[in-house]
Amino acid sequence: MLFSDITLIDENFASQEHQWIGTIDGRIAYVGDTAPEDPARFGEVYPGHDRVLMPGLYNAHSHAPMTLLRGYAENLPLQTWLFERIFPFEAKMTAEDCYWATKLACAEMLRYGTVSFSDMYYHSRDCVRAVREAGMKCNMSDTLIAPQEKSYDEYPLAAANRAYLEELQGADDGRILIDFNVHAEYTTNPLSVRTLAKAAKEAGVRVQVHVSETHSEHEECKERHGGLTPVQYFDSLGLFDVPVTAAHCVWIEGEDFDILADRSATVAANPVSNMKLASGFAPIPRMLERGINVALGTDGCASNNNLDMFQDLYVLALVCKGAASDPTLISPSQALRIATRNGALSQGREDCGLVREGMRADLVVLDASGPSWHPTGDAASHAVYAGHGADVVLTMVDGRVLYRDGNWTTVDVEEAKAHVEAAKQRILQDL
Amino acid sequence: MLFSDITLIDENFASQEHQWIGTIDGRIAYVGDTAPEDPARFGEVYPGHDRVLMPGLYNAHSHAPMTLLRGYAENLPLQTWLFERIFPFEAKMTAEDCYWATKLACAEMLRYGTVSFSDMYYHSRDCVRAVREAGMKCNMSDTLIAPQEKSYDEYPLAAANRAYLEELQGADDGRILIDFNVHAEYTTNPLSVRTLAKAAKEAGVRVQVHVSETHSEHEECKERHGGLTPVQYFDSLGLFDVPVTAAHCVWIEGEDFDILADRSATVAANPVSNMKLASGFAPIPRMLERGINVALGTDGCASNNNLDMFQDLYVLALVCKGAASDPTLISPSQALRIATRNGALSQGREDCGLVREGMRADLVVLDASGPSWHPTGDAASHAVYAGHGADVVLTMVDGRVLYRDGNWTTVDVEEAKAHVEAAKQRILQDL
Repeated sequence: MLFSDITLIDENFASQEHQWIGTIDGRIAYVGDTAPEDPARFGEVYPGHDRVLMPGLYNAHSHAPMTLLRGYAENLPLQTWLFERIFPFEAKMTAEDCYWATKLACAEMLRYGTVSFSDMYYHSRDCVRAVREAGMKCNMSDTLIAPQEKSYDEYPLAAANRAYLEELQGADDGRILIDFNVHAEYTTNPLSVRTLAKAAKEAGVRVQVHVSETHSEHEECKERHGGLTPVQYFDSLGLFDVPVTAAHCVWIEGEDFDILADRSATVAANPVSNMKLASGFAPIPRMLERGINVALGTDGCASNNNLDMFQDLYVLALVCKGAASDPTLISPSQALRIATRNGALSQGREDCGLVREGMRADLVVLDASGPSWHPTGDAASHAVYAGHGADVVLTMVDGRVLYRDGNWTTVDVEEAKAHVEAAKQRILQDL
Repeated sequence: MLFSDITLIDENFASQEHQWIGTIDGRIAYVGDTAPEDPARFGEVYPGHDRVLMPGLYNAHSHAPMTLLRGYAENLPLQTWLFERIFPFEAKMTAEDCYWATKLACAEMLRYGTVSFSDMYYHSRDCVRAVREAGMKCNMSDTLIAPQEKSYDEYPLAAANRAYLEELQGADDGRILIDFNVHAEYTTNPLSVRTLAKAAKEAGVRVQVHVSETHSEHEECKERHGGLTPVQYFDSLGLFDVPVTAAHCVWIEGEDFDILADRSATVAANPVSNMKLASGFAPIPRMLERGINVALGTDGCASNNNLDMFQDLYVLALVCKGAASDPTLISPSQALRIATRNGALSQGREDCGLVREGMRADLVVLDASGPSWHPTGDAASHAVYAGHGADVVLTMVDGRVLYRDGNWTTVDVEEAKAHVEAAKQRILQDL
């Protein structure tokens, strides 16, 4: 495809008007401010008038099957929310439910410009099946809950992970990646974490983990582990010997910043979920200042309640200013980089998340003709503050158009909706 | 029009499925859970499948012509933003600029379900002209800046306000209302405020005012006026003898809550603008607890940067939880009431803002067929947390459809965009 005379969010996340971008064989093959010499080799010409092209969004922390729990539990204290509403419902979810709920999640993500996501849930094989059918990318991890003092290998998850790796690692031209997972400090034991970290290092995989989401989790960890914060505790167990995506990090302090930066970990910020569950405001500007790779996640649909990353990056840009009482923090370009390139890096996808020749063609086109985009100005600012996820009119993954003008090319959304609706009714009757 | 078998956000802001709502002569003439006996009298039947009907949104604090400044000044400290960017630009804006920028604002508001707004800017006659042509409602106020110790009558605004009242008050079947205005404590003098309050009382009009938006404004007022906060200062000048909409109120304290509640003032909360400019988090839950009428505003497009009230009510519901560390605050129904009925009351429109027989037919229809709305559940929760302003497919004001399925019936959006674009270019060249 050749996007002609379009406004581009370029590799520096600055806005450039009148650009031509061509894709061939799933990669970006041309970026320039004049038309390429041989336009025919790119195939379809996409007219760029009133359109903005940018990298696709990377959702760095999600629980995709939780679309099934969207709006199921509102305005509750965290413990009530989790133990009386979320966990009992989840206990009734089957592998098939996870498949359909992930499929619905894929439809929603594609509609709002997300091309890839890092997920932690259960039934990874079935979740991955939905992602592969949708043609998206994911780093899928099956959640380790390890309350007893046993090594990782003694949990059934170890065998499951081996099977996932063998079957799925790098599938679909690398779109599918399997990560390992540690649910959190308070739901696992030190031996399980140490042995999982070792296994992850040997297998060359990344790890996703919840870290310091709530104040009580953070403080209780320190009580349990001789003053070690969750970051320090995990570091002491060797977890940061592999690339880690640490979700939340709302309450990290002191040395935590250095560990995350020095060990090249990613923090997946979840500003919407953190506000909805009243977990706190993460010190994102300080993380950025310290050089930590900050990416952006939606978290699950029970605490957001959608998968529109444009909403999350809008809230991110706002709340960093509000919480720190400093309106100069988080420029539009920074917010866009966090939601795209930094997410790709958190997934180990070096060749993704930037519009640059040679990179994977994971692209989003926004319709900038609506009143919110006028008068025209800095398209990066408009994309963050004025525009909407609903302005997405095209989502391309590895050069393939998966969503365009209200239509999904790979997902039967009506079918997914019907299955998810039926699953919810079945579970509600069974609770 | 007869909305048939539709999901309704009812007068208690609860979700009711399978409802019929009929409008006749600009009013809601039927609400029921069965079809009316004589459906033909309502005219067109609107199929309610996969649709949610709710009251139109009331934007309680805006500066509509500031669409012209959308994205013009980002990430700046407040004083730099205001004095080096906003004020010099505004000084170049003509009455005609305000007309076209308001027209663009009307298009944007209608597209996202807003039916009425309370505005403070300049060139009210020209702004109102745009609103009347759009068929919307507004409470328009021309800003009083009164730095010198003179009475209201000595300022040219007094004569202008008299003319506005004579020409425009109650125009278009009451859709157009003229309010008086006090910009803020720090931009006016006590005599001007006292005499304006008296004139407002005599004329029977409402007053719009900025109150305690920033910490420095609040503290400096106390220093200047013997410890009186802006609310207490204005109260001492008789301003609350008329119905007041006090925008922001981020830093109100102590007795301020009692004054606002007891004098039946409205607080127009602007959570997005307050975060973007890092002004602070308004104590909205405490206002509600004290019985203050809290409404919701976008503020101007230089500090938001759009007029999509659904985004603001989403942020409102989130940030109240986050700032108070309490996830139980602000239910979806509360958020919806704040953005609709409470706004209508702030404008003195008792017969607006609720879907109830006899009320004005100011209605919004949302398309609930998208993935974000599934599985189905509490439509109030979905409207606040999962849905988007872009899901609006119909906006009706006084029974007249002004926006539907991508088309505006009263505003030529391309014409408005072109004029606003030209105005911006002219002003930028002139700066």
